[in-house]
Amino acid sequence: MATINPYEVEGLIDYDRLIAEFGIKKLTPDLLERMKKKAGGIHHLLRRGIFFAHRDLKWALDEYDKGNKFFLYTGCGPSGPLHLGHLTTWVFTKWLQDTFDVELWFQFTDDEKFLFKNKTYDEIQKWTYENMLDAIAIGFDPKKTFFLHDTKHAGIMYPEAIKVAKKITFSTIKSAFGFTDSNNIGSIFYTSMQTVPAFLPNVLRNEKRPCLIPLGVDQDPHFRISRDVVEKLGHHKPAIIHGKMMCPLEGAQGKMASTDPDKAILTTDNPEMVKKKINKHAFSGGQVSIEEHRKLGGNPDIDVPYLWLQYFEEDDAKLKQIHDDYKSGKMLTGEIKQILIDKINAFLAEHQKRREAAKKRIDEFMYKP
Amino acid sequence: MATINPYEVEGLIDYDRLIAEFGIKKLTPDLLERMKKKAGGIHHLLRRGIFFAHRDLKWALDEYDKGNKFFLYTGCGPSGPLHLGHLTTWVFTKWLQDTFDVELWFQFTDDEKFLFKNKTYDEIQKWTYENMLDAIAIGFDPKKTFFLHDTKHAGIMYPEAIKVAKKITFSTIKSAFGFTDSNNIGSIFYTSMQTVPAFLPNVLRNEKRPCLIPLGVDQDPHFRISRDVVEKLGHHKPAIIHGKMMCPLEGAQGKMASTDPDKAILTTDNPEMVKKKINKHAFSGGQVSIEEHRKLGGNPDIDVPYLWLQYFEEDDAKLKQIHDDYKSGKMLTGEIKQILIDKINAFLAEHQKRREAAKKRIDEFMYKP
Repeated sequence: MATINPYEVEGLIDYDRLIAEFGIKKLTPDLLERMKKKAGGIHHLLRRGIFFAHRDLKWALDEYDKGNKFFLYTGCGPSGPLHLGHLTTWVFTKWLQDTFDVELWFQFTDDEKFLFKNKTYDEIQKWTYENMLDAIAIGFDPKKTFFLHDTKHAGIMYPEAIKVAKKITFSTIKSAFGFTDSNNIGSIFYTSMQTVPAFLPNVLRNEKRPCLIPLGVDQDPHFRISRDVVEKLGHHKPAIIHGKMMCPLEGAQGKMASTDPDKAILTTDNPEMVKKKINKHAFSGGQVSIEEHRKLGGNPDIDVPYLWLQYFEEDDAKLKQIHDDYKSGKMLTGEIKQILIDKINAFLAEHQKRREAAKKRIDEFMYKP
Repeated sequence: MATINPYEVEGLIDYDRLIAEFGIKKLTPDLLERMKKKAGGIHHLLRRGIFFAHRDLKWALDEYDKGNKFFLYTGCGPSGPLHLGHLTTWVFTKWLQDTFDVELWFQFTDDEKFLFKNKTYDEIQKWTYENMLDAIAIGFDPKKTFFLHDTKHAGIMYPEAIKVAKKITFSTIKSAFGFTDSNNIGSIFYTSMQTVPAFLPNVLRNEKRPCLIPLGVDQDPHFRISRDVVEKLGHHKPAIIHGKMMCPLEGAQGKMASTDPDKAILTTDNPEMVKKKINKHAFSGGQVSIEEHRKLGGNPDIDVPYLWLQYFEEDDAKLKQIHDDYKSGKMLTGEIKQILIDKINAFLAEHQKRREAAKKRIDEFMYKP
């Protein structure tokens, strides 16, 4: 059985089982239809079930329709370079921001990563800066996007975090995150800080807008604990929309990690590196020889290049063609890999250009109390 | 056996046993002599062994003599009105400030009291304000005294607190404070915040001065845990000077608490209230009748009016006379109580005048980053 929490993602994830276990709901056709109507189209990550589940999304859309716009909240734990899996959630978040014309509060949890990783404070600060460049490069609206940098915004966050913390016992944390008495006391407190942006904008402005959190489903336990607490503090429970974890290059188990940079595509990789990594490490659903492959066909369901193309080939017709050709054996492993390499390199070329330009723009995105 | 930690003080405290148990050291005549020499006299709370123990005081004085002045750090947990026991530590702290001409960093732990007490955030803020008035009324030098208000100064404190927190496990906290899994996660984290002022001034100014903490001995466990941590973070271990707990009106067990205002003298009590409380509640070492008392004499060792006069009658000769007269039966219970009432009312009249004036002075004392 898979382990899924913010500090551990292991095994082959059964998302239907996760829905039951976490008590979240599958995105239904009528919810997709409502978003499609608003956007004039439906994002391919929604169409393809990569964003697949939610909490209270219907309510957030109802409020929106009544004129009570939600704000978005997502985040980044800065402990190393980012990979394509991180960007996926943000690309989708940008689509939500554009579609609904709403604010985004973007948390950089440098405190978390300092407390959980064997890295120095300065190293974490360096990665916070680097990760901010990637976030800006996504193209969020600077007028409607507010970065919260936990240690820099502690002055406004800590007073709210203790209100959350007072209502959560260590017993609860233990069972949600698998912690023990050997955990450091900062890591035990931390989830309170992750809860704060779900209501902080309302505290700062004396409003009561809904909050919608797009996140990777592994982050859900933070909010599973804190949604009731947030409500007890007089705020709305945040709504959530959950994404599946982009699988690692080497196969469909677990989630991608930057800790082994050979096996994840980083946002700063150059075209040569992307090519090399995919050709060398991408788990293939193809047969052992060209002859076998032509005869038996490949298996797209376990083929990482195909699975990843679901993120990068937006055209459904083209994706289906690739699927069918690969499955029939008409398309070879080298060919499907090359398609992915080209797609990712085109995406990264654009991303890296904007990432470079972002170096002058960090202050523009920083929330100023 | 007595329980002594920041969250529980119960039973009759055996201070010699505490010295062994906490691993602290008794103040020696040579240390007292060094302070006396500097001050041109020795404070009566030191003379009388009310401040009785220390950690690394010799080292702090050595550094001072070399020109590396320590700063003082003490604090207040604002959850209700203050009583005379609170003021004792601060009166002594002012003497240290005046004697050594040093800075005082004064922490108001509103986060702690919010997390540990069944009170609202706003109630705690109200008491923080009230307690600040008492602190100012003590007469600290406003040019050399800096208030840290945890939730207001979280911007500079939280980033340092997580560095402390990373090095302390919940196991350690459990044994030091008697916590369980039912503790809220803010209370578990909190000791990190109490550690920060022991080195924050050096962080803010890029210095490496010693820190000397005058405190009630019940607060020692915070620093017993964190002194090694502070050193690992590249700072000096703070030195500490420990005071005994002023006993409650009703007898020599435990420590005074404001929670039962009938049984503690509050800093805002008027002369009538002081008189009534002492006459009604002060535990007496006298005999059951005047006749018996004249014959057998009183027992000053358990007589709260006498024990309290050690704090309020600075003149050793007068105190000895009272002791002897009470013990011989020459002085009656009503008489010794009246002496205490007069002393306390004189002290409070002055204190309350300065407390009133302090209402315009809070900003003057607040640390401004």
